[in-house]
Amino acid sequence: MPKGKPDPASIPDDGLTTRQRRMLPVTAVHTGPGKGKSTAAFGMALRAWNQGMNIGVFQFVKSAKWKVGEEAVFRRLGELHEQTGEGGAVEWHKMGEGWSWARKPGAEEDHARDAAEGWAEIRRRIETETHDFYVLDEFTYPIKWGWIDVDDVVATLADRPGRQHIVMTGRDADPKLIEVADLVTEMTKIRHPMDQGRKGQKGIEW
Amino acid sequence: MPKGKPDPASIPDDGLTTRQRRMLPVTAVHTGPGKGKSTAAFGMALRAWNQGMNIGVFQFVKSAKWKVGEEAVFRRLGELHEQTGEGGAVEWHKMGEGWSWARKPGAEEDHARDAAEGWAEIRRRIETETHDFYVLDEFTYPIKWGWIDVDDVVATLADRPGRQHIVMTGRDADPKLIEVADLVTEMTKIRHPMDQGRKGQKGIEW
Repeated sequence: MPKGKPDPASIPDDGLTTRQRRMLPVTAVHTGPGKGKSTAAFGMALRAWNQGMNIGVFQFVKSAKWKVGEEAVFRRLGELHEQTGEGGAVEWHKMGEGWSWARKPGAEEDHARDAAEGWAEIRRRIETETHDFYVLDEFTYPIKWGWIDVDDVVATLADRPGRQHIVMTGRDADPKLIEVADLVTEMTKIRHPMDQGRKGQKGIEW
Repeated sequence: MPKGKPDPASIPDDGLTTRQRRMLPVTAVHTGPGKGKSTAAFGMALRAWNQGMNIGVFQFVKSAKWKVGEEAVFRRLGELHEQTGEGGAVEWHKMGEGWSWARKPGAEEDHARDAAEGWAEIRRRIETETHDFYVLDEFTYPIKWGWIDVDDVVATLADRPGRQHIVMTGRDADPKLIEVADLVTEMTKIRHPMDQGRKGQKGIEW
């Protein structure tokens, strides 16, 4: 069935061998109004974990109530890695509760500052090759709202060392983000149960 | 950020309570030419596993080489469930090697027959409520090719007992499948590395 075999005529004249092209880092964006943007990113992270990659998840979401299912499973997979050496290491960070590395007890809530701090930390990690596979979940929103400078993001991604894969999710991805990515998928909503007033479902929505 | 809260004006006049609406089974289709259809389905299965649901995956794919990452992780999660009671049980079946329940050593390869057998078994399981969450991966193709009767699928899904969630993936979903689903997402390819002759990547493509 669909194997996505490249047309030999489209093999680029870049002087790279097939093996070298297999080693290129991937920059992916999942955008659009439909479901599955984050879910597909976590699905990709699942494969990466299975290949022994070091996973870093950074959620630019306000509420900690969302996506608890994925978080629980990935934390468990991270424990498995520590206990048995299977798969890769996992770090999972959320802006919603204050980034764990930046917790300032009693500090006033400031989402713009939190988002900028989140990106600054991710940039440091990219520059020092901390992880093999990054999920920047709902990362398009702080960019859209001007809390994170898209030019800084694009420059950091374009110049990053080594072979770090980066997947970003969220609606309304900035055109510059689309431009720097080599894998862009738009999720389009055709029909959604909530349109009919149905409620989120345990095991489906979280 | 986007919480998908239903507009109160759209709450249906179906006599159901919010609690009852939360218990409705979900029928989802991931279609379109873009990436992420299967990956998002497995991401949903991850949440379902975490809620203790019994997971049944049925892959209507020819090659067993694809999606080995997800399979490896879900098999591991199924073992975890057996060992520690965490999450839910997992069964993972593939048409490519002959369905495990239908193996006929030496039988001639016949994809049409295999696909029909696969669907007959899934229908039996749906009728007897074997699983809580089904992934019918690349299920649109045998329907498209006439190997599985879409009317039979639609009737089985519409009449199914209990609260069994079903996610189907693949391009070119039959309009009748779209019609019976309450959650349909189309994945559109905006840009893909293979367009530039790049090769599949370990941890990204498998």
